[in-house]
Amino acid sequence: MTAQEAYQWLLQHSRESAYLESFARLAAWDQATYTPRKGHPHRAQMQAALAKLLHQRATDPRIGERLAILEGSSWLQPGSVEAVNVREWRRAFERATRIPERLAVELAQATSEGEAIWEEARPKNDWEGFRPILKRIFALTRELADVLGYKEEPYDALLDQYEPGATTAQLEPIFKQVGEASVALLRRIQGSRRRPDTAILRRHFPIPAQEAFGKEVIARLGFDLEAGRLDVVAHPFMQGIGPGDVRLTTRYYPDYFNAGFFSIVHEMGHGLYGQGLLPEHFGTPMGSEISLGVHESQSRTWENLVGRSLGFWRYFWPRVQHHFEALRDVRLEDFYFAINAVEPSLIRVEADEVTYNLHILIRFEVERALLRGELDLEDAPEAWEAKYQQYLGVRPPQIGDGLMQDVHWAAGLIGYFPTYTLGNLYAAQFFARAERELGPLEEQFARGEFSLLLEWTRRNIHHQGSRYWPRELLWQVTGEDLNPTHLLTYLERKFSALYGV
Amino acid sequence: MTAQEAYQWLLQHSRESAYLESFARLAAWDQATYTPRKGHPHRAQMQAALAKLLHQRATDPRIGERLAILEGSSWLQPGSVEAVNVREWRRAFERATRIPERLAVELAQATSEGEAIWEEARPKNDWEGFRPILKRIFALTRELADVLGYKEEPYDALLDQYEPGATTAQLEPIFKQVGEASVALLRRIQGSRRRPDTAILRRHFPIPAQEAFGKEVIARLGFDLEAGRLDVVAHPFMQGIGPGDVRLTTRYYPDYFNAGFFSIVHEMGHGLYGQGLLPEHFGTPMGSEISLGVHESQSRTWENLVGRSLGFWRYFWPRVQHHFEALRDVRLEDFYFAINAVEPSLIRVEADEVTYNLHILIRFEVERALLRGELDLEDAPEAWEAKYQQYLGVRPPQIGDGLMQDVHWAAGLIGYFPTYTLGNLYAAQFFARAERELGPLEEQFARGEFSLLLEWTRRNIHHQGSRYWPRELLWQVTGEDLNPTHLLTYLERKFSALYGV
Repeated sequence: MTAQEAYQWLLQHSRESAYLESFARLAAWDQATYTPRKGHPHRAQMQAALAKLLHQRATDPRIGERLAILEGSSWLQPGSVEAVNVREWRRAFERATRIPERLAVELAQATSEGEAIWEEARPKNDWEGFRPILKRIFALTRELADVLGYKEEPYDALLDQYEPGATTAQLEPIFKQVGEASVALLRRIQGSRRRPDTAILRRHFPIPAQEAFGKEVIARLGFDLEAGRLDVVAHPFMQGIGPGDVRLTTRYYPDYFNAGFFSIVHEMGHGLYGQGLLPEHFGTPMGSEISLGVHESQSRTWENLVGRSLGFWRYFWPRVQHHFEALRDVRLEDFYFAINAVEPSLIRVEADEVTYNLHILIRFEVERALLRGELDLEDAPEAWEAKYQQYLGVRPPQIGDGLMQDVHWAAGLIGYFPTYTLGNLYAAQFFARAERELGPLEEQFARGEFSLLLEWTRRNIHHQGSRYWPRELLWQVTGEDLNPTHLLTYLERKFSALYGV
Repeated sequence: MTAQEAYQWLLQHSRESAYLESFARLAAWDQATYTPRKGHPHRAQMQAALAKLLHQRATDPRIGERLAILEGSSWLQPGSVEAVNVREWRRAFERATRIPERLAVELAQATSEGEAIWEEARPKNDWEGFRPILKRIFALTRELADVLGYKEEPYDALLDQYEPGATTAQLEPIFKQVGEASVALLRRIQGSRRRPDTAILRRHFPIPAQEAFGKEVIARLGFDLEAGRLDVVAHPFMQGIGPGDVRLTTRYYPDYFNAGFFSIVHEMGHGLYGQGLLPEHFGTPMGSEISLGVHESQSRTWENLVGRSLGFWRYFWPRVQHHFEALRDVRLEDFYFAINAVEPSLIRVEADEVTYNLHILIRFEVERALLRGELDLEDAPEAWEAKYQQYLGVRPPQIGDGLMQDVHWAAGLIGYFPTYTLGNLYAAQFFARAERELGPLEEQFARGEFSLLLEWTRRNIHHQGSRYWPRELLWQVTGEDLNPTHLLTYLERKFSALYGV
């Protein structure tokens, strides 16, 4: 078999698997939107059958044989599309084949059970009921880290699944710096006499108007609603089915503006990445998102750097007043201050830009200590509470608002949380670079011009697919390594001005 | 390998394929309901990739090896669930392996092209544009009949795909009898002075009220909306995803009652069959519908024998008047007459109970003659028009309302039309038997009691899955062979009373 034949085989194998994955994603979207109540058990069995088939395809020994032919061949030009795909196919094949079937099955069972138990135990604050399965999930995940392999510590193996090349050693000092600066900024804000009137966001916002305004905004920002949808779910997410079919979801509260609107813009940021992948590379690494952190950078860019900027609201102010009677007596500046209110809270998903990364830092520190065996699971709730007290000055009155608030660990997503803060860091660093190239962006936003920024992200990020791992992508796009100064400078400028501190 | 091991292997293979088919069905439902415009090309590629995989699974030579072990084994008890499954697995395997890949691919391409050309050509009455691809589809279908095999004539091989065991020789005299009786009844009705006031069905019927009333009715009839859905599409259909997930669709016109309502009840009839299959047999022939004709018998039972009966409307009359202001000055008897108006028309899908089977008879005669080579495709439009003139006394002014009105032939569905009339015949024969066992059904309907009939169809038809081929099922349930007298007696009684002829 020639190198070219080997490549063609891998290309077809990869594409066929990707079409099957499109079915799995469509079915997952449907589970969250339109599956009837009694259809869920069958859906779970469908997904299990397809997952089994996809695992068989991912570990097919013929992949390894063909990769070996290519890796020893001069046919593969360094830096070419083909070389990128071969590199990432190897990475995926190694990961898939290193996990013994027994471990994969046990993890799938434990996390499936874990999610179900969490769902029941969280509202009841039932830590004793949740702890045994969580202990098992951490033990299995530790095993997983060992079979995946790492250089310095087990946590690296987990992190690398979501963020190729990221290591604890690299993240730790950066996260620490972000944490300290955030705490310092928060303290100053708390000392300010200025307070936004957030009650204006709790007025009556009819759901049809929220939907109409949301769709108007995302269409203006560049999301193609003929190549996507917007539906309602309990926990918003974005699902990219494939080229021309990228689906956003949100939830609406008739008496709260932020939840619906910023979910839409956040998920649209993910969706723009999905719509920006090159369709000719569909089903290969060159046509796929590189990491969760880079994904999150796209959602945070549009949600925060664009959607919570004054320029953005200058442009949309007449439209928002048109859609919502409740805002007709409100001044733009008061609205802008209200949507940027900083308030230490217990719940990550409700956190503002200043405190958000502290929520992540706490999770990073706790899960890493658990995995290293430096912290017993029995003591984790207390460690969690102490950290909330220390960083945010609040203490969860019940564990459902504490360690048990997120589904991630129950779902086996350990080492996943850091990608949220990485997303914020990348977003600020990309944005700073874009601004250097494109000129002051908020002035463009105030004129309703969002296409320069979108095209810049398309060219520099979306079209690159998985060509570069995140750290290399940062170098390529911004000319420097991951640098928290961009995020911290942005936060400092924005919030010291808002709060006069 | 023991017989039991062979059976277990086949069971798992069949179930896994069925889960994959559930994905295909979900994706097809989504294509008709919620897929964004630009997502359709990707969806077609997804479906092609899955169809290829399912074809590979269906022709896996290990199936044949295991079937051979079982067929020669005393382990398989005649009449057992296992024996039924083995019989039907053999049938499916033979069919799948007899079709050479070249022919399958050419048919798939020609029909995909055919549907697209039909879509464009029909509104333009462009027969010259449509004829070449239709000629090719008929030629390929003739080839298909030859590889599938038949005893008497090629049409049998096609018919047998949709209606196991049915033959042209059996159907021809029955269809002829139904045709003659229908024409005679129609002539008498046309001679009557009584005319229903169908304008009352063309008043204003707000769509939300149509949806609310439709859901109220199907819930009362026994359709479980927690194990299903009702959505809006251009061309209504039922899609059974799997146990607990059976989806109905309809379309609404704000100024026409019948289209939305009777589509809902028709599709619900299909849906009740889907909800009545035994979930423990999911993914095997014992848990699957036996034929299109039997499927159609279920939809026609609820649409016509129940939904167009006076008893049904006696019960729902207060509810329909509650939902629709437009009907508050209408008398029940006038409404009942209007929804049962008989009027020869050009369009099959709008036909009443008396003329419907004439539309089918014409298609059966034309497609069979084409397949036997007794009619040239060039002459088919004229043959079509002559038959409409002869049976229905109407002549299509344009081919879009004539031979080109249905998508079926363009989609390769040749030999499919007879299953519609078979459905009407089975429905009447089952209904007559049910009435003998359960007492006068319309009196039950008038009291809002539909569960006895539903339970009877569950027990006798739905729970049987593919145990009996349709003709044997008729014997088992009604104690006689297919007998058109039941349908003709029903039509004669109902319409002679309505029209006083």
